[in-house]
Amino acid sequence: MRPSGRAPDEMRVITIETGFTKHAEGSCLISFGDTRVLCTASVEERIPPWLRGKGEGWVTGEYSMLPRATHTRGSREAARGKQSGRTQEIQRLIGRSLRAVVDMKKLGERQITLDCDVIQADGGTRTASISGAWIALRLAVNSLMASGDIKHDPITGQVAAISCGIYKGTPVLDLDYPEDSDADADANFVLLEGGNIAEVQATAEGATYDEEALLRLLRLARMGCDGIFSAQLDATK
Amino acid sequence: MRPSGRAPDEMRVITIETGFTKHAEGSCLISFGDTRVLCTASVEERIPPWLRGKGEGWVTGEYSMLPRATHTRGSREAARGKQSGRTQEIQRLIGRSLRAVVDMKKLGERQITLDCDVIQADGGTRTASISGAWIALRLAVNSLMASGDIKHDPITGQVAAISCGIYKGTPVLDLDYPEDSDADADANFVLLEGGNIAEVQATAEGATYDEEALLRLLRLARMGCDGIFSAQLDATK
Amino acid sequence: MRPSGRAPDEMRVITIETGFTKHAEGSCLISFGDTRVLCTASVEERIPPWLRGKGEGWVTGEYSMLPRATHTRGSREAARGKQSGRTQEIQRLIGRSLRAVVDMKKLGERQITLDCDVIQADGGTRTASISGAWIALRLAVNSLMASGDIKHDPITGQVAAISCGIYKGTPVLDLDYPEDSDADADANFVLLEGGNIAEVQATAEGATYDEEALLRLLRLARMGCDGIFSAQLDATK
Amino acid sequence: MRPSGRAPDEMRVITIETGFTKHAEGSCLISFGDTRVLCTASVEERIPPWLRGKGEGWVTGEYSMLPRATHTRGSREAARGKQSGRTQEIQRLIGRSLRAVVDMKKLGERQITLDCDVIQADGGTRTASISGAWIALRLAVNSLMASGDIKHDPITGQVAAISCGIYKGTPVLDLDYPEDSDADADANFVLLEGGNIAEVQATAEGATYDEEALLRLLRLARMGCDGIFSAQLDATK
Amino acid sequence: MRPSGRAPDEMRVITIETGFTKHAEGSCLISFGDTRVLCTASVEERIPPWLRGKGEGWVTGEYSMLPRATHTRGSREAARGKQSGRTQEIQRLIGRSLRAVVDMKKLGERQITLDCDVIQADGGTRTASISGAWIALRLAVNSLMASGDIKHDPITGQVAAISCGIYKGTPVLDLDYPEDSDADADANFVLLEGGNIAEVQATAEGATYDEEALLRLLRLARMGCDGIFSAQLDATK
Amino acid sequence: MRPSGRAPDEMRVITIETGFTKHAEGSCLISFGDTRVLCTASVEERIPPWLRGKGEGWVTGEYSMLPRATHTRGSREAARGKQSGRTQEIQRLIGRSLRAVVDMKKLGERQITLDCDVIQADGGTRTASISGAWIALRLAVNSLMASGDIKHDPITGQVAAISCGIYKGTPVLDLDYPEDSDADADANFVLLEGGNIAEVQATAEGATYDEEALLRLLRLARMGCDGIFSAQLDATK
Repeated sequence: MRPSGRAPDEMRVITIETGFTKHAEGSCLISFGDTRVLCTASVEERIPPWLRGKGEGWVTGEYSMLPRATHTRGSREAARGKQSGRTQEIQRLIGRSLRAVVDMKKLGERQITLDCDVIQADGGTRTASISGAWIALRLAVNSLMASGDIKHDPITGQVAAISCGIYKGTPVLDLDYPEDSDADADANFVLLEGGNIAEVQATAEGATYDEEALLRLLRLARMGCDGIFSAQLDATK
Repeated sequence: MRPSGRAPDEMRVITIETGFTKHAEGSCLISFGDTRVLCTASVEERIPPWLRGKGEGWVTGEYSMLPRATHTRGSREAARGKQSGRTQEIQRLIGRSLRAVVDMKKLGERQITLDCDVIQADGGTRTASISGAWIALRLAVNSLMASGDIKHDPITGQVAAISCGIYKGTPVLDLDYPEDSDADADANFVLLEGGNIAEVQATAEGATYDEEALLRLLRLARMGCDGIFSAQLDATK
Repeated sequence: MRPSGRAPDEMRVITIETGFTKHAEGSCLISFGDTRVLCTASVEERIPPWLRGKGEGWVTGEYSMLPRATHTRGSREAARGKQSGRTQEIQRLIGRSLRAVVDMKKLGERQITLDCDVIQADGGTRTASISGAWIALRLAVNSLMASGDIKHDPITGQVAAISCGIYKGTPVLDLDYPEDSDADADANFVLLEGGNIAEVQATAEGATYDEEALLRLLRLARMGCDGIFSAQLDATK
Repeated sequence: MRPSGRAPDEMRVITIETGFTKHAEGSCLISFGDTRVLCTASVEERIPPWLRGKGEGWVTGEYSMLPRATHTRGSREAARGKQSGRTQEIQRLIGRSLRAVVDMKKLGERQITLDCDVIQADGGTRTASISGAWIALRLAVNSLMASGDIKHDPITGQVAAISCGIYKGTPVLDLDYPEDSDADADANFVLLEGGNIAEVQATAEGATYDEEALLRLLRLARMGCDGIFSAQLDATK
Repeated sequence: MRPSGRAPDEMRVITIETGFTKHAEGSCLISFGDTRVLCTASVEERIPPWLRGKGEGWVTGEYSMLPRATHTRGSREAARGKQSGRTQEIQRLIGRSLRAVVDMKKLGERQITLDCDVIQADGGTRTASISGAWIALRLAVNSLMASGDIKHDPITGQVAAISCGIYKGTPVLDLDYPEDSDADADANFVLLEGGNIAEVQATAEGATYDEEALLRLLRLARMGCDGIFSAQLDATK
Repeated sequence: MRPSGRAPDEMRVITIETGFTKHAEGSCLISFGDTRVLCTASVEERIPPWLRGKGEGWVTGEYSMLPRATHTRGSREAARGKQSGRTQEIQRLIGRSLRAVVDMKKLGERQITLDCDVIQADGGTRTASISGAWIALRLAVNSLMASGDIKHDPITGQVAAISCGIYKGTPVLDLDYPEDSDADADANFVLLEGGNIAEVQATAEGATYDEEALLRLLRLARMGCDGIFSAQLDATK
């Protein structure tokens, strides 16, 4: 039995509030149960130095947790003077995942930064970040197209992410914090609408796993992402 | 005329949503118009080294802006590797202001950290932080008293803060961003319920000011803080 | 009674030695009793990036204490790898105060940096820094005008600063260290010759204060600054 | 056709020189073709603070590239003052992978640090690091058992890692640098002798991939790791 | 001909003002011509962790230049966030030089830190620092002996330092800045009263040098240090 | 008697393996007994900002120890976030020593960086670095001349370095770690083929030394460097 009473293949309730902040070109507050992440897309008319003059754009991600997003207060990375390895790993994953669905030529010489700030954490913050960042990106690009700054839609599809894991011997979908901290294996899947895979990160924590388990987790992730794809479309209609 | 059409002594609408995050011992999302700050109070059963063994507690503040709280995206302090002078100045002010209404002996050997994270900025983020932090602190202390961890209420009164300034020659209350960036003088007042002053920071920006102007700003601040004191009481009843 | 035996409205002895270092375009060693600060003005023919091409100059301040300026040795900020919040707060105040008396158009596209290094500390180091920095600035500008680099005097008046406080219930002028560490309230005033105010920072330490006390401190500060204005003129004649 | 002329399922030549440095409790220089990594295991009789008093040990990894391990010189992380996100990600992976085959109770209250320093890079440095770190660990533990410091072997099995990828449409084993920089997808597998999986990191670079491709890459990885397991045994006999 | 008109073996005028700051246990402002360094000795009743329980003390040095000690303003190391290699090299040299004349057993479990802050620079700041630091140390130890905290004098002799160099082909004593920046070779000697050598650092800048030149520089240094030893004694009588 | 049983004027066995890494323009692994340093020369067609447009090149050095090069593991400087004073001192020495034998005009507008990474340490790592760096530089320049990028050989001679010291009262050549950690004085000499001196750094550790001792150490260093010069020539023929 899962601590939350959910069925093994049952997602938490997803809620999405778009336009959560007024300055960002695109934004949403996305919740997976008690996990809440504010995702904003910021458009800037400058690109990284190594891309200059190529006629291409760039999409990148940043991630942070508010100090008291978690059960006990964590110290502020700005005060410590550096970002943790975990933060940097997640930031790189967010950027990579979103770039998988953007045509950089069509985006043109501009950068979109996807800031994912975790307001409240209850497991699955990185996957919620990716799923919400797509919405913020979609809204920002819509606005660029409405203003005529972009002619052809650079977004080639939807991307979403979900965590699955092996909890007390059972593969389960959408780990919350009590499960995450006690799972034998923990896998994050970044999937594209249509079935393709952008990223698999499947890590043994308490116990290693076999190929069959990996495939069952992937199947659960597909189910979960189908629900997220629908919610993304609803939110950006 | 003020850009917002407000009268010189008219505050923005204040809204307060308590319990905004579930992990913090006390929390609220406080808004002054479009300025929105998440304030959380975290109780920890440890104190700074220089207080050990004295039977006293400590109250401190931290402050940050989300990168896209502002009109254009600012870089993340954690990525830059250090907090700006402005951030540190505000953090010190928040801590000092709240300590003005706490009896450290009654608090006992524990620390309460008030995290003020600006979700959206439109002027007056530091004063909104202080006003909201008092609410988070009040809720956290209520909970410590309910659980019996604290016997006697260590909070000696209410504290609130508001900015005033001289805008196009007229003293006005509760500056928003368009006013703040164009004011001749900008003053932050931290006041106690009952009339006493905890802090005045009155800075000439475009032009210096005289004693009469300082006193008019202080009177406006009193009016503003009276409204905040009521809102604080309503929120923590 | 004040520990030093001074009357409540009695300043410490001010001494000013101009030309203390030979390389700086302007310099002085200013003393308020045992507080001694070396102030230098350095002229550089470059300006911050955000001012380029505007035909304006910039004035900025930096501040530091030598490790053994104080009763017990403090660690060196360069060794710790960052400047404290207190240092940054003071640096910002010095720059703001001096900019209040400079016409940036007349200064032209150059930057003047006012370095204030505390050789010995006995309270009031930030206000001594501001008062001495004006002298260094005046001397540096004199030299730029003598050489013909600047045609019209960009300095629009004198600025000086002094601390006052409420010590054992009595408002007193020019706090020394024993008073500063034991005062109920501590206020720094930055005033212009002629009566206008550039900055008020009045902070409750042990006890909050009322409006009348604020006004009495301001009046003491006016008396103190009048003496500093005279000393500045004598030193730069 | 692969740039190296290798068949799709053909590994590069593996060479292992154990005892490469005399101070480390265990060490080897491991080469996969032109990729050469020095792996050392250092035993220290101290553990991280959060493990104290639990009677358990810890295994952790560190990773670095010499500045001229690569085609063009990279700047030294120590000079830049921080480790890159990539370095931290790899360090975390090395530690996690090795911990998957260590019984921390049997290890006892000591820490083994696996330093993986890349002397020359030609693709696959993180997987070579893991495969070589196991050898250094095995040798260090052998020495602890020979000296009687450890009674029961804490190593529960072998772990090895290899990268696979989709290069010009074909799944290939053991990517070298020319393939790695031009692959559509790049996957790192950390496998246990016996068939279980410790970690999968499969990332779309140029193009996303489907489930069948993931499984073909996993099968190639199994072939590759079988060869590494043999080489590890030979080296530590 | 030397730019200053000095003879090859002629020192600059040395002046020493002891007791320059009131808080330090020992202090002096030492000048070699226009080079002026404030040296303070701070006694602390704590020692580095690796010395605890050995009944021995420690002597260490720190060094810094005020930003406008030099012809053009240098940036502040505290603002840059790290000490330069040059600063660290000089700090290490100061500490080593003074430790050469201290019996750590007799000093007892306390640390003396010698802070050398360059007020004005005109060549030879590191050697002036060492020569002045001995005076500050002597005064601090005198005070510890007068108070009875130390029974037996831990200072075993005098140490002084001077720079020499080959300037336009001629060995010269006590380089000033114009000579230092144009010398073919630059040597710093740290000598003990009585003739022994604590340190030689002789560096080819424009041209390498031969053994005979090294010996001539050493002889000049002996002459120079003899003068410094006398001045040290006069200052600490 | 020396711990190694060597005669006072006996060097350790020197071995040099050129071309140790394939990417660097020049490289060698140089060993003095158990001290092993990997030296690489990297040619870059860019120069430091302050040299631009002068038609001159630059040669610089960097130095690091692998964490387990030593008897006990040292922490990684990249993880600590800064290079130690010792590392910076050695880097500066390496660069200075090699620049003593390079004609920067003939080198042309390019920079050669000499990376010296200590694989295993047993005393004398900085002098081995300099001696090996010359070989890497020679090989890199040979390659630039073979390709026609450089017309006239910019290398004006050979440079080598060796440490000597006074061990238990006897001057000895080429200190190993047991001697180095117990020597009364420790001197590093950087010499040019032909007899000239580039640098002397002679430091009293346990006891100061006299002029005669300095000269005996210099004579030993000459003997040692003669052997290194031969080995350098053999390795680069």
